[in-house]
Amino acid sequence: MQNSAPKMANPRKLERFVSTALQGAGVPLGDADLTASILIDADLRGIDSHGVMNLYGTYVKKLLTGGINNKPNLKVAFGSPTTASLDGDNGLGFVASHKAMTACIEMAKQHGTGWATVYHSNHSGAGAFYVLMAARQNMIGIHWSTGGSTVAGPGGKRRLIGNNVFAIAAPGKKQGPFVLDMAATMAIANKIQMRQWEGKRLPEGWAVDSNGQPITDPATYFATEGAILPLGSTASYGVHKGFGLLLVTDILTGLLSGDGGSMLRRKGEESQAFCALRIDAFPTGGDFTGLMDAMIERIHAEPTVEGAGSMRYPGERGNLTYVERSAHGIPLRPNVVEDLRRMSAELGLSMDDIWQK
Amino acid sequence: MQNSAPKMANPRKLERFVSTALQGAGVPLGDADLTASILIDADLRGIDSHGVMNLYGTYVKKLLTGGINNKPNLKVAFGSPTTASLDGDNGLGFVASHKAMTACIEMAKQHGTGWATVYHSNHSGAGAFYVLMAARQNMIGIHWSTGGSTVAGPGGKRRLIGNNVFAIAAPGKKQGPFVLDMAATMAIANKIQMRQWEGKRLPEGWAVDSNGQPITDPATYFATEGAILPLGSTASYGVHKGFGLLLVTDILTGLLSGDGGSMLRRKGEESQAFCALRIDAFPTGGDFTGLMDAMIERIHAEPTVEGAGSMRYPGERGNLTYVERSAHGIPLRPNVVEDLRRMSAELGLSMDDIWQK
Repeated sequence: MQNSAPKMANPRKLERFVSTALQGAGVPLGDADLTASILIDADLRGIDSHGVMNLYGTYVKKLLTGGINNKPNLKVAFGSPTTASLDGDNGLGFVASHKAMTACIEMAKQHGTGWATVYHSNHSGAGAFYVLMAARQNMIGIHWSTGGSTVAGPGGKRRLIGNNVFAIAAPGKKQGPFVLDMAATMAIANKIQMRQWEGKRLPEGWAVDSNGQPITDPATYFATEGAILPLGSTASYGVHKGFGLLLVTDILTGLLSGDGGSMLRRKGEESQAFCALRIDAFPTGGDFTGLMDAMIERIHAEPTVEGAGSMRYPGERGNLTYVERSAHGIPLRPNVVEDLRRMSAELGLSMDDIWQK
Repeated sequence: MQNSAPKMANPRKLERFVSTALQGAGVPLGDADLTASILIDADLRGIDSHGVMNLYGTYVKKLLTGGINNKPNLKVAFGSPTTASLDGDNGLGFVASHKAMTACIEMAKQHGTGWATVYHSNHSGAGAFYVLMAARQNMIGIHWSTGGSTVAGPGGKRRLIGNNVFAIAAPGKKQGPFVLDMAATMAIANKIQMRQWEGKRLPEGWAVDSNGQPITDPATYFATEGAILPLGSTASYGVHKGFGLLLVTDILTGLLSGDGGSMLRRKGEESQAFCALRIDAFPTGGDFTGLMDAMIERIHAEPTVEGAGSMRYPGERGNLTYVERSAHGIPLRPNVVEDLRRMSAELGLSMDDIWQK
């Protein structure tokens, strides 16, 4: 069963199903539709670890038990023409993050740039979605988000800091968009979970057990409350740089919003930061999209060593997967289908109508 | 000689010597003093690779031969209340970068945030200096800079992209300041040079020769025009993340300034970007420095595995080294002293008066 082929879901039908499930958990129609569209966008881009895989466990269960507030009162407070903070009121992170990036885009339209922090919020899925909102407006979108506190510091023995995210998108003309959406770590917990499902071991250097000793068995990670390592993994490979980047996310999200970040959480699960830069507000940035095309074409033309495959730009795989899955459907692993079935039983929904014909 | 002890220079005397040398190369007094203070600051913070080690080869020689314009006409153009671009006119990067961050701080004072790009400029030393300018004003300072094009892409065979820099600083109350100043690569060329001087090999994964094959001999790196690898080094260690971060610097500096970045340089050697965020412009960011202290104290309290040493925050070593070297002097390696002597002979200067008593 673990290795049987994934079933193909129809993107639009799956999106409707997701919205219906969220409404079943008490989320108002508009917020449910928005959240569904962001989750499906992650699956379409191939970011399976941030799509419907998490619908039941990370969102619906918590909405049903009150762990996430299904009717939050989102308040945006402005501190200057280009800065704002948003109290997420412990609601769905998607809705708060979307509102914050929208505010950044509005500020950038008027004043060149816009920044917003979000606090007292929850997991808001893949950062790619929010930064692409800006890229579609001929802006550069930047985003930082805390992640689950599953990561050790350099030489550390245990979980200390969040699996924190940095994402950025920028438009091209014929190429792109450029989308970097990364945790500054060796892996995220969902990827370790997927390795376990696939019966694979972890590469050395990804994780340690609760005594700080290296592990390669995914089961050990979960059984011992192991910790993931920052990007770089070891001292000679630059683990202090990965750790530094994780701290930057905590500073820009948690410290700047007053929440404290992934190490000092005061309120709610997650905090985020957003930034939009209007490209034509930079006096000499007029040929930006042309330069982006040239940069990407330069990368594509670069020779690589045997076996390495051709060089890609960040977001390229996601852009291609988006087109392919929009046409042919979203593959759902058996474990995910099973999880959605359990959710459907609890909510009294049918999954019969979500599949690709 | 290579391994003999470094000589100790007096920081203030060395700074005056550096300014005099720059004036000897035709740099006006104010620009020479500013550049000297930034170079000495790097040495005081222990960033030897970005201090007076580079004075002759990277700056003075080029100033004397016209490779760097010693009397640039720096122009700042504003495109909105919070965005600017600065034409560096092929002058010393230090002066242009200082002017750009000053503009960001002014914009942030008035409008909350400020961004500036610099193009047609040159190497501007350690990013730490510029971001600390903002931190001293109760702002977060952020900086990106292209570096020399010495880095291969993932699976690449040769030099493709710059050894690009990201730096950020933020103030604490009793702790800090936090200063992350990093290239998103395994090493910089000056560090490979220092390994060669010390007779040490490179850790595996730092660099490849001109056929993309791994090397550990520093001499091979220079003899074959080898390439440094992005942070992550290999596919399973996340080299695509390091490469993505290098591209982000090219986008925010080179694409946004119209110069093209490290892969498409159109004018001048280097381009930079600067950002300042006024902390009290974020409505809920009032306790920022208190939270910074708490974050740092949390890091210091974290247990580590045997042999790893205690956990530090980014900038901690530099902050401590600054105090120590301010009191006891800046150690200059024999190779650096020899290089400065050659420069002094060319400029008719004496080095007798730079040493610590």
